[in-house]
Amino acid sequence: MGALERMNSPADLRALSPHELAPLASEIRQLLVERVSATGGHLGPNLGVVELTIAVHRVFSSPRDPILFDTGHQAYVHKILTGRAGNFGTLRAGGGLSGYPSRAESEHDVTESSHASASLSVADGMAKAFELRGENDRTVVAIIGDGALTGGMAAEALNNFFVAAHRPLVIIVNDNGRSYSPTIGGLAARIVSRGANQVAGELGFDCIGPVDGHSLPELEDALRRAKDSRRTVLVHVRTLKGHGFALAEGDSAELMHSTSAIDPESGTPLHSAPGTTFTDVFGDELCALAESRSDIVAVTAAMAGPTGLTAFAERFQDRFLDVGIAEQHAVASASGLALGGMHPVVAMYSTFLGRAFDQLLLDVALLGQPVTFTLDRAGITGPDGPSHHGMWDLALAGIVPGLRVAAPRDEPTLRRALREATAHSEGPTLVRYPKGEVPTPASISAVLPGGVEVLRRADRADSTSVVHDPSRMTTEEAIPDPAVLIVGIGIMAGQALDCAHALEEQGIDAVAATALWVLPVPEALVELAGRASLVAVIEDGAEHGGVGSSIEAAMSSRGVDTPLRRFALPQEFINHASRAEILRAAGLDGAAIADRIAVERSRR
Amino acid sequence: MGALERMNSPADLRALSPHELAPLASEIRQLLVERVSATGGHLGPNLGVVELTIAVHRVFSSPRDPILFDTGHQAYVHKILTGRAGNFGTLRAGGGLSGYPSRAESEHDVTESSHASASLSVADGMAKAFELRGENDRTVVAIIGDGALTGGMAAEALNNFFVAAHRPLVIIVNDNGRSYSPTIGGLAARIVSRGANQVAGELGFDCIGPVDGHSLPELEDALRRAKDSRRTVLVHVRTLKGHGFALAEGDSAELMHSTSAIDPESGTPLHSAPGTTFTDVFGDELCALAESRSDIVAVTAAMAGPTGLTAFAERFQDRFLDVGIAEQHAVASASGLALGGMHPVVAMYSTFLGRAFDQLLLDVALLGQPVTFTLDRAGITGPDGPSHHGMWDLALAGIVPGLRVAAPRDEPTLRRALREATAHSEGPTLVRYPKGEVPTPASISAVLPGGVEVLRRADRADSTSVVHDPSRMTTEEAIPDPAVLIVGIGIMAGQALDCAHALEEQGIDAVAATALWVLPVPEALVELAGRASLVAVIEDGAEHGGVGSSIEAAMSSRGVDTPLRRFALPQEFINHASRAEILRAAGLDGAAIADRIAVERSRR
Repeated sequence: MGALERMNSPADLRALSPHELAPLASEIRQLLVERVSATGGHLGPNLGVVELTIAVHRVFSSPRDPILFDTGHQAYVHKILTGRAGNFGTLRAGGGLSGYPSRAESEHDVTESSHASASLSVADGMAKAFELRGENDRTVVAIIGDGALTGGMAAEALNNFFVAAHRPLVIIVNDNGRSYSPTIGGLAARIVSRGANQVAGELGFDCIGPVDGHSLPELEDALRRAKDSRRTVLVHVRTLKGHGFALAEGDSAELMHSTSAIDPESGTPLHSAPGTTFTDVFGDELCALAESRSDIVAVTAAMAGPTGLTAFAERFQDRFLDVGIAEQHAVASASGLALGGMHPVVAMYSTFLGRAFDQLLLDVALLGQPVTFTLDRAGITGPDGPSHHGMWDLALAGIVPGLRVAAPRDEPTLRRALREATAHSEGPTLVRYPKGEVPTPASISAVLPGGVEVLRRADRADSTSVVHDPSRMTTEEAIPDPAVLIVGIGIMAGQALDCAHALEEQGIDAVAATALWVLPVPEALVELAGRASLVAVIEDGAEHGGVGSSIEAAMSSRGVDTPLRRFALPQEFINHASRAEILRAAGLDGAAIADRIAVERSRR
Repeated sequence: MGALERMNSPADLRALSPHELAPLASEIRQLLVERVSATGGHLGPNLGVVELTIAVHRVFSSPRDPILFDTGHQAYVHKILTGRAGNFGTLRAGGGLSGYPSRAESEHDVTESSHASASLSVADGMAKAFELRGENDRTVVAIIGDGALTGGMAAEALNNFFVAAHRPLVIIVNDNGRSYSPTIGGLAARIVSRGANQVAGELGFDCIGPVDGHSLPELEDALRRAKDSRRTVLVHVRTLKGHGFALAEGDSAELMHSTSAIDPESGTPLHSAPGTTFTDVFGDELCALAESRSDIVAVTAAMAGPTGLTAFAERFQDRFLDVGIAEQHAVASASGLALGGMHPVVAMYSTFLGRAFDQLLLDVALLGQPVTFTLDRAGITGPDGPSHHGMWDLALAGIVPGLRVAAPRDEPTLRRALREATAHSEGPTLVRYPKGEVPTPASISAVLPGGVEVLRRADRADSTSVVHDPSRMTTEEAIPDPAVLIVGIGIMAGQALDCAHALEEQGIDAVAATALWVLPVPEALVELAGRASLVAVIEDGAEHGGVGSSIEAAMSSRGVDTPLRRFALPQEFINHASRAEILRAAGLDGAAIADRIAVERSRR
């Protein structure tokens, strides 16, 4: 490192003379490509904002002037410029730098959420607070992509700036013409196509630009004018996603938006391509269903690729809807599609369901409309950290009257869940599945009425009673004597099986079970619980309101008081680390759970 | 009734000659004033849309052309014109007409939610569905107030119309310059001030207007042109809220937006003024706190009056923020206020928390910011029906890590909750309380460590051990022998007391307890539960993820396996009726709960 080595804070950056900046920018780009190609991460967005971030930190004085990054994955350069260049090799690893702003890391990081479109609202509140406290020298800076302007939250904030444009607040629109995908519609499109100056009258406050986002002098000049006005100003900056790294520019932008570890020369992934993922299976099965069902429509909020809809979008162009970063609209317009006689499948990441809870509840479920929600990245996602884990979805889903919820654990159950969900016409369904490869299916020894499945290890065909016609197995056959019942939800079926095995090795009778459709709780599961000595529920969602609680409530309402233990994610925000590390830290491995159960039994 | 008697469907309306319409409008206004002044309801908004609704039903053919009402309380005239004039005297009463569109009532009612800003999204979906199905003769009609345009959902929908303006869809902006309060900022303000024609270029689709919303010929002409274009068109209609009824016009508009039963001549309420309400106490205590705490800011999403902030807004004008109908922005900007050193109090109706769940979770709680949320109308609200009951808040709140939740039951506990919430600096707090008058405080016989309160009836000072220094009472003193522990959450403390009393009369030992701060679950409550023979939790929220589940989970995690029973609202959408009727139907009265417990015990 050259100039970067001396860069411990933004003050060091401000001390540089203008001719030192271009080399610094090159050095940062080199560091980004080197490090992110080794760790994986959001490469393209950060290559695009090197000059912009330099200019921001030269013109404004963080943290006195708070810098807010909308969708914080564009904050890598900011991290590098605020004393964290040396740690950049630990990006997104457990205990290492977060891939988003992190208040624990630096006083220069203000917010943490990586959900889009929120920065303008937070900025509005901060500007108001500074005004009330008489801190008139401070300027709030928010950096937001043109894609994020399609989110309703951003419009709500803009409405409020319209009536209070007298506060010092600089909104930087980083216009690269894309969200994850090319930007959809509306205000963003108008800014992109006509330039912010042309829409200034619409916004009700001053606009500067468009500014060349890779020209440091232009940027510094525009930002300084905005700052000096002591009012609310929008600065429209045109950048190129992936700038300076051919593999991440132009048509390759989606590819390099977020990347795994790659060879920086060729862009080739360093690790062998993953096997079939849940995302792949979803995309494939949905296409198969759409072949025979002309009423199926796929809806995405700017996430076609990540949710597996690329092939669907090509093959069924008319029946594919990308509404932009606008989860509320995605869900409520799906209700409209259903009211109009179609069967919409809304594909999103689990973590974004919280953005559209009210719409799921009152625009879909209250009307009893047949909409299928598919939540990818449910459970622990890993390196993206607390705002991306899909750990609240089961609790939210449980609130919604009439919503049926499936938790597939492998390829066959995901395909079955999608077929059954789209065949259900009485109301909404939700199918949630984790990030990553589909595991080898577990063997089923028996299926009880209502779809509860008793699991057995492939190597232990002798361990439980094997029934020739599994569909006719009774509760008594499944649990011949009181035993510990281990219920694994979705992908955690594997842990349930491991746990049962470990318990049996300790001489404790145990039965592992699962069910594809977990809400409403199958009656047979309550019956099994009624014959058990203890019920343990393992799930990769947060404890509160999870399936464990739903099972307990179903038991209690039928007077079944078998003690129940939840093995779930703690009700905490969980930092980034690998999925395996996080599950281990939460105690969610079969053997560990077995030990905890055995210890508790020995105390009785 | 004259013309109205013959009005069984919109076809009858279309058969009228133009000169018959003015008398019809008068007749409808007379019916509205007569009936709504007797039943209570949304008078002002409906008086404003009499001519508009007539014109819509003459130009479009419902239900072939679906008519969607944003915030459905403006659908009374629509109900009258679609065969429901005769039932109008049953409005909002249990078993009577809903105060909102209701699919069960009529094929002319399409959606039901009364949360603002959703209609455009649903309309977008329906228009897309008709296009896919080749039903090209159908036009979707959405009627939305200018106030609802400030909601982010509406902006998300407009963004999508921008890129797909070729579908037959008529957006009618009912511009009366108000939401509940005068409209705040942005697009709505531009439409209001400049007329829709002037902003047509901004919207990217055709606009007609402004049109005089009380001139039937002008309205019919504009709507017909919009319909005939077979494209997306916005029709800007100017109406006067309360038109034709002096008591509901102009400065009186807020008063008559939603009214109780009144004398139609004078506007005087028919029933004596209610006593002090939770809303009153909140407003009063917040003003008292703001006197001594210059950091307190009040935030509302267009609901200053209904949430009790009118006095605060007058006395602390600088520290009062009305952000418009924009709950997402209200919550995220509150985070900004807290980040900037203020202590915001966000006051909203419980039912609207679902609109800002993601912001509460990731923009406030993840950052550990001290924001106080106060939820009025928690629990059963009564005549407003399923989209207004505040029955999901406790389940949502329980999901949020670090959120402390209080459920005041009377005036002293509400004041205490507010003081403690605003004094808490480690993270967010939420205080939820019901609609209506504060009850007489229950007597407390003892306070256990951690704030768990043992209740006793005022007339039964002898019934439980009375301790001279209640703060030193131990768990053993509170439950000397195993007894049924009845926990009442918030306002349900009264039912807990009644239940304990009824059980004791049946010879079953019972202790009633409550706690102001219910989340996190107080340790002392788990200890009490450990000594009890059965735990019953009574709450006026939905069962899933409620405080009952939180208590059960806290017990289970400490190995306390006393059987627990939840007495909560069913996980269903609950129709409108009086609060008392709904609680009774849900079995939430003390004596009924005691009977259910006694029966179950007798079976053991």
